[in-house]
Amino acid sequence: MKKWIGFITLLYLITATGIAQVANVQVPELEKKHVRNTIRIPDLDGFRTLKCDFHMHTVFSDGIVWPEVRVYEAWEEGLDAIAITDHIEHTPHKPFVGGSFNSPYEIACPKAKELGIVLIRGAEITRDMPPGHLNVLFVQNIDKINVPDPIGAIMEAKNQGAFIFWNHPCWKAQQPDSCIMFSMHKNLIEKKVISGIEVFNEKEWYPIALKWCLENNLAIIGNSDIHDFTSHYYSMEQWHRPMTLVFSRDTASVSIREALFAGRTVAWFAKYVAGKEDYLQELFRKSVIVDRPGKAVKGETALTLKNTSDFTFELSSLSVPGKMAIIHPNESVLIKVKPNEDFIVSNWFIGADENLKVRFF
Amino acid sequence: MKKWIGFITLLYLITATGIAQVANVQVPELEKKHVRNTIRIPDLDGFRTLKCDFHMHTVFSDGIVWPEVRVYEAWEEGLDAIAITDHIEHTPHKPFVGGSFNSPYEIACPKAKELGIVLIRGAEITRDMPPGHLNVLFVQNIDKINVPDPIGAIMEAKNQGAFIFWNHPCWKAQQPDSCIMFSMHKNLIEKKVISGIEVFNEKEWYPIALKWCLENNLAIIGNSDIHDFTSHYYSMEQWHRPMTLVFSRDTASVSIREALFAGRTVAWFAKYVAGKEDYLQELFRKSVIVDRPGKAVKGETALTLKNTSDFTFELSSLSVPGKMAIIHPNESVLIKVKPNEDFIVSNWFIGADENLKVRFF
Amino acid sequence: MKKWIGFITLLYLITATGIAQVANVQVPELEKKHVRNTIRIPDLDGFRTLKCDFHMHTVFSDGIVWPEVRVYEAWEEGLDAIAITDHIEHTPHKPFVGGSFNSPYEIACPKAKELGIVLIRGAEITRDMPPGHLNVLFVQNIDKINVPDPIGAIMEAKNQGAFIFWNHPCWKAQQPDSCIMFSMHKNLIEKKVISGIEVFNEKEWYPIALKWCLENNLAIIGNSDIHDFTSHYYSMEQWHRPMTLVFSRDTASVSIREALFAGRTVAWFAKYVAGKEDYLQELFRKSVIVDRPGKAVKGETALTLKNTSDFTFELSSLSVPGKMAIIHPNESVLIKVKPNEDFIVSNWFIGADENLKVRFF
Amino acid sequence: MKKWIGFITLLYLITATGIAQVANVQVPELEKKHVRNTIRIPDLDGFRTLKCDFHMHTVFSDGIVWPEVRVYEAWEEGLDAIAITDHIEHTPHKPFVGGSFNSPYEIACPKAKELGIVLIRGAEITRDMPPGHLNVLFVQNIDKINVPDPIGAIMEAKNQGAFIFWNHPCWKAQQPDSCIMFSMHKNLIEKKVISGIEVFNEKEWYPIALKWCLENNLAIIGNSDIHDFTSHYYSMEQWHRPMTLVFSRDTASVSIREALFAGRTVAWFAKYVAGKEDYLQELFRKSVIVDRPGKAVKGETALTLKNTSDFTFELSSLSVPGKMAIIHPNESVLIKVKPNEDFIVSNWFIGADENLKVRFF
Repeated sequence: MKKWIGFITLLYLITATGIAQVANVQVPELEKKHVRNTIRIPDLDGFRTLKCDFHMHTVFSDGIVWPEVRVYEAWEEGLDAIAITDHIEHTPHKPFVGGSFNSPYEIACPKAKELGIVLIRGAEITRDMPPGHLNVLFVQNIDKINVPDPIGAIMEAKNQGAFIFWNHPCWKAQQPDSCIMFSMHKNLIEKKVISGIEVFNEKEWYPIALKWCLENNLAIIGNSDIHDFTSHYYSMEQWHRPMTLVFSRDTASVSIREALFAGRTVAWFAKYVAGKEDYLQELFRKSVIVDRPGKAVKGETALTLKNTSDFTFELSSLSVPGKMAIIHPNESVLIKVKPNEDFIVSNWFIGADENLKVRFF
Repeated sequence: MKKWIGFITLLYLITATGIAQVANVQVPELEKKHVRNTIRIPDLDGFRTLKCDFHMHTVFSDGIVWPEVRVYEAWEEGLDAIAITDHIEHTPHKPFVGGSFNSPYEIACPKAKELGIVLIRGAEITRDMPPGHLNVLFVQNIDKINVPDPIGAIMEAKNQGAFIFWNHPCWKAQQPDSCIMFSMHKNLIEKKVISGIEVFNEKEWYPIALKWCLENNLAIIGNSDIHDFTSHYYSMEQWHRPMTLVFSRDTASVSIREALFAGRTVAWFAKYVAGKEDYLQELFRKSVIVDRPGKAVKGETALTLKNTSDFTFELSSLSVPGKMAIIHPNESVLIKVKPNEDFIVSNWFIGADENLKVRFF
Repeated sequence: MKKWIGFITLLYLITATGIAQVANVQVPELEKKHVRNTIRIPDLDGFRTLKCDFHMHTVFSDGIVWPEVRVYEAWEEGLDAIAITDHIEHTPHKPFVGGSFNSPYEIACPKAKELGIVLIRGAEITRDMPPGHLNVLFVQNIDKINVPDPIGAIMEAKNQGAFIFWNHPCWKAQQPDSCIMFSMHKNLIEKKVISGIEVFNEKEWYPIALKWCLENNLAIIGNSDIHDFTSHYYSMEQWHRPMTLVFSRDTASVSIREALFAGRTVAWFAKYVAGKEDYLQELFRKSVIVDRPGKAVKGETALTLKNTSDFTFELSSLSVPGKMAIIHPNESVLIKVKPNEDFIVSNWFIGADENLKVRFF
Repeated sequence: MKKWIGFITLLYLITATGIAQVANVQVPELEKKHVRNTIRIPDLDGFRTLKCDFHMHTVFSDGIVWPEVRVYEAWEEGLDAIAITDHIEHTPHKPFVGGSFNSPYEIACPKAKELGIVLIRGAEITRDMPPGHLNVLFVQNIDKINVPDPIGAIMEAKNQGAFIFWNHPCWKAQQPDSCIMFSMHKNLIEKKVISGIEVFNEKEWYPIALKWCLENNLAIIGNSDIHDFTSHYYSMEQWHRPMTLVFSRDTASVSIREALFAGRTVAWFAKYVAGKEDYLQELFRKSVIVDRPGKAVKGETALTLKNTSDFTFELSSLSVPGKMAIIHPNESVLIKVKPNEDFIVSNWFIGADENLKVRFF
């Protein structure tokens, strides 16, 4: 391959060097080509599966990138919707970076429109525990949320129509020895002010938070909380960034908001998926195609399981100990299965200590 | 490989999910590992070959990254020395980003010390043509260079001890139809105020600038002028970022300054190298090992040419038309050569239209 | 990632070295994992699109691999059906390798059954031009085809029920200065003995052969003619091996035979596709999803074209010169399109000098 | 990158399709480019470090490739010397593949001469345990070694001047429950008939065999025993194939033989190295450059350890528990070290349960 590239640029240079006045020779092979990747996740019946990340930072709080970076990262990675959620009460770049708390959203907006990325106005209320950190999405004016009393800030966001979720509840910086839900959270959940919890944040996952979400019918959220470039922080040759899959009527911002309040989400991080059993069951069925069913031999049938999605599946038989299969994206496996043989998907969670159970026939 | 990673994290999760109170489970496979790569370029007799980039931007002018990003990028890529050179007269982020013109340097300094990267205080004087854009390195106080008169700004930098070079002389935004050296530049070169010219900038190379450098004994400079993340802008799976190789007595900042004023540099960009014949000849001899000399057959001897460097070499015989060999980094080629057969390295330039000539025996 | 692999194997070795009698320590990270990849090509209405390669060699003629290698290569690469077609009249390994001409098929058969690959019994009749080389598929006994007279050999194959196609018609070793169809071929085509022609072989494509196929209603065939390991010969990080896409009622061998005689095929090689307009039009429509239609601005509508297949598309507008888009597998592009604007897919051929024409709305 | 390749081939095709008679269009981007890679391992004082693999198979015994494949694999991977060692007493392809036991060597010889690979005539004596399997190198006529009595076969090889080593001594197929040295082996070692043992074979390593080698002053051997293509069997994106490093006066076959009898070898497999302490100490010192020594802070000095080799090093401090560093090929690490602080290289073995110990200053 390289020799052809070499050939092409050689043409340029031969021309160039043959004429004394040659001034400006392009070297296009140096530049990285930027494209939008497709994340292959099936839609659910009646809903589109949107790939969303609702937690990220810029130089306006403690991130290291200019706001519109967040938009083109999302476009390149195949995401549909993002929220830039700079800290309100934690702005270490303050001596150098200022402006309204709405500035990151406003700076990034034109790029989002150009590329068709849904950009949600949001912010991170950043307090001691309780309540800790909470993200507020779909707000009108972030500057008004910058008030001393944490409950005051939260209620101001709620009054602006915010969808509010509790961030990284078991983050060791705020809950070093255990992870409990404080009465303040219980209260806010009961009053339908907090409507979701991050079960995954950055590179940590919180099984107990999945339990809380299922018990309280809250949206199950997974976010990157990225401060760095995503491609510099995450091993993206192997994984997509962590994200929330939202089952939405369409790609409109109001539809995403409706889906979040309705709890139609699952969290996806590395090879793991966490969410309600129904959603995981449907995602599984639409992702894994049972192909080429052979004839039964000694009560076992050879199946080809073809993974048509970007999920990874780790299957373990419940009746034959040690019988496992891992199906990576774009790959198939051959497996022999008995009638009514149950498998668990050991990397898909429908509870803090419960895996999705599947059967092939 | 993947299955082992899977196994390891499974151990975590089994532990995790077996106990109801499990709160915080790390998913380390998501994170990218950051290491310092080695750029394999031979040293010259008496000098170390330092890998340097003297032109880059941050959010403090029109870049999109926080200053210390420039330091860890350089560390990861294997560079030895960099200068952050934000525009003085072009600060489009001004409504949001402020502070002294020295701030980018001062913010990045602690990280540079920690990682052992030489960080040079610098800035880009950004004017209409002439004089266009000039980078000033090793200055004391950039704020003082912010004066209306371009010559005043340049002379203030010179008085602070700056090494000054002319940036992207044939940039089409400033010289759309031709590329000439203005009398202002001639004057500044004669007075030893301008001591170098970029023969390469970002993704453009300027053969005519190489001619000017050789005629006027100026330092031959190649820089990235990066505004984005380097790994997002450049195709770094294939190439290193463009850079200036400085032949320096040691890695001290003062030694780099001495080497620049002495013109001991070559520019390296994608597969191309541009510089003085002597330096290229020595770099070639130390990079390409002639191995395993066989016996002559019909006047030709089979050689193995082993490329021990990160350079790419495109060899063309001067006596046998069409006889070529390309030697990529870490590779060897077999080639049959006659005594006194001359080759040109067609991607190495010792003049605007002249290639390095080499002979193997 | 590497550090975790390191950790796992360290566990092994600590155990190992702690006990004097440790004998046998596995180093599993050395082994390559073998999986079946999915080739993502849409099915056509009423037909499955099978990925087939009908031309390959083993040590039994002039290849360098044992027959069952051809089966697991095909399985790993995602193919559905193959024919091993060793030369009958060209067996340079004869002093060392012998047996019946049916041996390669018989040796490879059990592996093909195990992996679910359709293995077709075939051979290559290997003569001077005319008739040159012809592949015969679905034969009963290859040994009987080994007769001196070329027409005798061809008719014996035909009598055994063979599907017969002309291989690499414009191969320079047999037609160095031009590429014509000899009267012997015309005759055999008229008599429905030859039913297909390779428009692509190994790394060569023959536009004129596409013309002949379309004029004579022959199956359009593309094959690898591989002698080496496919992964050693082809640049498979970037491309699939060249192949024939067969639109078949199902995966049974008889169905493939029916589809070949019916001419329901296209050839796919690197980024190129060659075939009948109808098939290419349907493949295009099912591969490229027009997503996210924005509002018209100045008569232009912004579209996202999402490539859900493993094809590559190079689009050129017929009304706006220089307006191009390349859509690689798994990627999307943004493009602005006018009503009734026609594009050609410049790498898809529906004639020797004609490209597929497409319109988005 | 891809778009330029596309462009180049488009030129071809535009030309092609513009003229009706176009017959034969090359698609060169399909082909994989084959080059010789460099394995970067330092030479020892007075010796060249040759990269050798003394155990591999072809279709002439139970391998799946034609003999000359072994030569070009070795050339591409950067090896210097190989021995093809087909089984004498195990020839499952016999109904189809025949000839002399010398045939694999003779078939591969011309290719080896062309590419400058040292090809050693060898074979594998393949018996029940004891003696199990033994490789004989530098023999004159393998057919004569094909005698019923195992000792007779071994002594015939010895009389032909063979260097003889014991293969995979702890292979579970022959020693399922333990791994002992039989008296037959002890006897042959005492009589200097067996002069080496494989401490590594295929994907297994035998610490106890390292102990035996050190106790009996035998050559420490590591081999692939490859039957498949190396690039299909091994994960060569990450590792080189397993091999024996031979410290030889030069690349001549007789010099390699001298070095083997003198025991100047180490085994290298994945990230592991096993051998005599002196050789490992010298390899370490020449591979890891201690760069950029900073000033001592609180008794600790920051060092950059630059790995200039293709080895991987896993360092563990002996005085500070948990203090580790992993240095991959072509990478550097920053580490703080106290005077006289000892480290072990936990993946380099100088005994069955002993690691190399190193100190930086």
